[in-house]
Amino acid sequence: MKVVVVVGGVGGARFLLGVKAALGLPPIGEGSSPHEITAVVNTGDDVWMHGLRIAPDLDTCMYTLGGGIDTERGWGHKGETWVVKEELAAYDAEPSWFGLGDKDIATHLIRSQMLRAGYPLSAVTEALCARWKPGVKLLPMTDDRVETHVVVDDPDNPEQRKALHFQEWWVRYRASLPAHSIVPVGAEEATPAPGVLDAIAEADAVLFAPSNPVVSVGTVLSVPGVREALRKTAAGVVGVSPIIGGKPVRGMADECLTAIGVETSAEAVGVHYGSRQTSDTGLLDGWLVAPGETVHVPGVAVRAVPLLMSDVDATAAMARAALELSGVELD
Amino acid sequence: MKVVVVVGGVGGARFLLGVKAALGLPPIGEGSSPHEITAVVNTGDDVWMHGLRIAPDLDTCMYTLGGGIDTERGWGHKGETWVVKEELAAYDAEPSWFGLGDKDIATHLIRSQMLRAGYPLSAVTEALCARWKPGVKLLPMTDDRVETHVVVDDPDNPEQRKALHFQEWWVRYRASLPAHSIVPVGAEEATPAPGVLDAIAEADAVLFAPSNPVVSVGTVLSVPGVREALRKTAAGVVGVSPIIGGKPVRGMADECLTAIGVETSAEAVGVHYGSRQTSDTGLLDGWLVAPGETVHVPGVAVRAVPLLMSDVDATAAMARAALELSGVELD
Repeated sequence: MKVVVVVGGVGGARFLLGVKAALGLPPIGEGSSPHEITAVVNTGDDVWMHGLRIAPDLDTCMYTLGGGIDTERGWGHKGETWVVKEELAAYDAEPSWFGLGDKDIATHLIRSQMLRAGYPLSAVTEALCARWKPGVKLLPMTDDRVETHVVVDDPDNPEQRKALHFQEWWVRYRASLPAHSIVPVGAEEATPAPGVLDAIAEADAVLFAPSNPVVSVGTVLSVPGVREALRKTAAGVVGVSPIIGGKPVRGMADECLTAIGVETSAEAVGVHYGSRQTSDTGLLDGWLVAPGETVHVPGVAVRAVPLLMSDVDATAAMARAALELSGVELD
Repeated sequence: MKVVVVVGGVGGARFLLGVKAALGLPPIGEGSSPHEITAVVNTGDDVWMHGLRIAPDLDTCMYTLGGGIDTERGWGHKGETWVVKEELAAYDAEPSWFGLGDKDIATHLIRSQMLRAGYPLSAVTEALCARWKPGVKLLPMTDDRVETHVVVDDPDNPEQRKALHFQEWWVRYRASLPAHSIVPVGAEEATPAPGVLDAIAEADAVLFAPSNPVVSVGTVLSVPGVREALRKTAAGVVGVSPIIGGKPVRGMADECLTAIGVETSAEAVGVHYGSRQTSDTGLLDGWLVAPGETVHVPGVAVRAVPLLMSDVDATAAMARAALELSGVELD
């Protein structure tokens, strides 16, 4: 079976652990299985920082599935140290608000050097995964530079608006500056990375992880060709709601949804993704929500199952429900 | 008084501590003094490594004079850690033989980013020194890319010759591969960094630190214009021998001298630098050698004083002797 999962960072990576387990693969590392999982990963959070190319969502997926993640924090390496960061601070080097871990820097050094040598991000990701062996094919949504920017009132001059890189808005300001709009800069001219459209076309099931619908899944969807491929694929497309009881399970999805005029509710997000059957632009066949939610999304099969990714077993049950809702038969 | 010192890495940095002390400056950090010391620093050891621009001699001088050096090892930071290096090794990233310390990497990140943004190395060095406050104006010999290469028998194919970057020859092979020649690649097209020629022209004394005569001082001298400036300056030019009793005090200068056909002796190195007075190409007015050496360099005033830089006081006495031999009067 071929499964494609559209993912962001922490939530997406954890969901992938469950998809692997649901298909009989070991959650961490590689295993032998007739099934094939491809993750199409958001790269809109990517940024140049101190001359290094950071790809937070790709790295979070790679470290999580490869067994290197700090499981408590959900991002970065276990046993991470911060010597370089402290030393950069001693130089007063900006930005000082971004936590570049020492182990992480090794990844960024290799990525930056390969990118500068002309390798596309997809090839770089494959090279890095040769070490981590995530057991899932990790594809960046695009090899082109797409960076999510957030338009806010300029904190230094409230009369003016200012576009911040998503990372600055998210990490430095903890999404506390109300967003007027959120724009994946560069997306219009981007093309999907090699393999993305084929994976969607050939999939038996396509899942949207319970990642941020705006700046994770939404950014992947902003790459021209991805929506069309999702609408055309013979696979069922099922989304997993990141909103439970009107609140994001994790992160600050509410601030992002507000910025695009979508209510923070499982129903509103489902309607935002829309129906492949009854709408000309919709993407979903199925929508997984938490128990107790009363959700109606026209033209979409809604099912309620526990959605807390508290451990791999719980996540595997979610993934199994999503796969079943998509129409595939599991053993 | 204006003093210019031509230096390499560890030996040069230690000698500068003594020059500062000889002029009444604190060896570490800044102090108020009517005297001005300019170090013209070898950059032929510089190299791109993992996408970072490494400038070993500039950094050794900066850390040593700024109080950040690992004094036992002589290079790198005190309290250095090696997390990034170990992580790069886990990726099998080459080169693996070069020890990039975590603290050091912060310096290299800032340098690399500034260079890529278009700042010349001299401006980068000034920016880095704003933190370290070495109390000496550190000038790279040139802002142009000059890299010392060493021609050896190819270790993988002894029938062929191969040019190694100096760092690879020095650090990876510990200078154990006999050098057919040593070439400062790029030197012919290089120009001295801003301030270098003026500093030499306006100096009251010019000293050659007891650095490697081939790959440190020799590389500085290979930049077009530097030799001419040294021959023209009104200042006395005095060298300090790095060879005592036919052996280099430190490092592997003998391998380098052999490669250029110069005997490893204080006399031969003095003759190699030559006399400003009696030769058309010579550079020295004075040559400082160790007690007990019988050295004759035609046209050069030779003086014997203790040359071991065992501590700052001993080094200051050396520097004082060198300054006096150059003709300046000290308090």
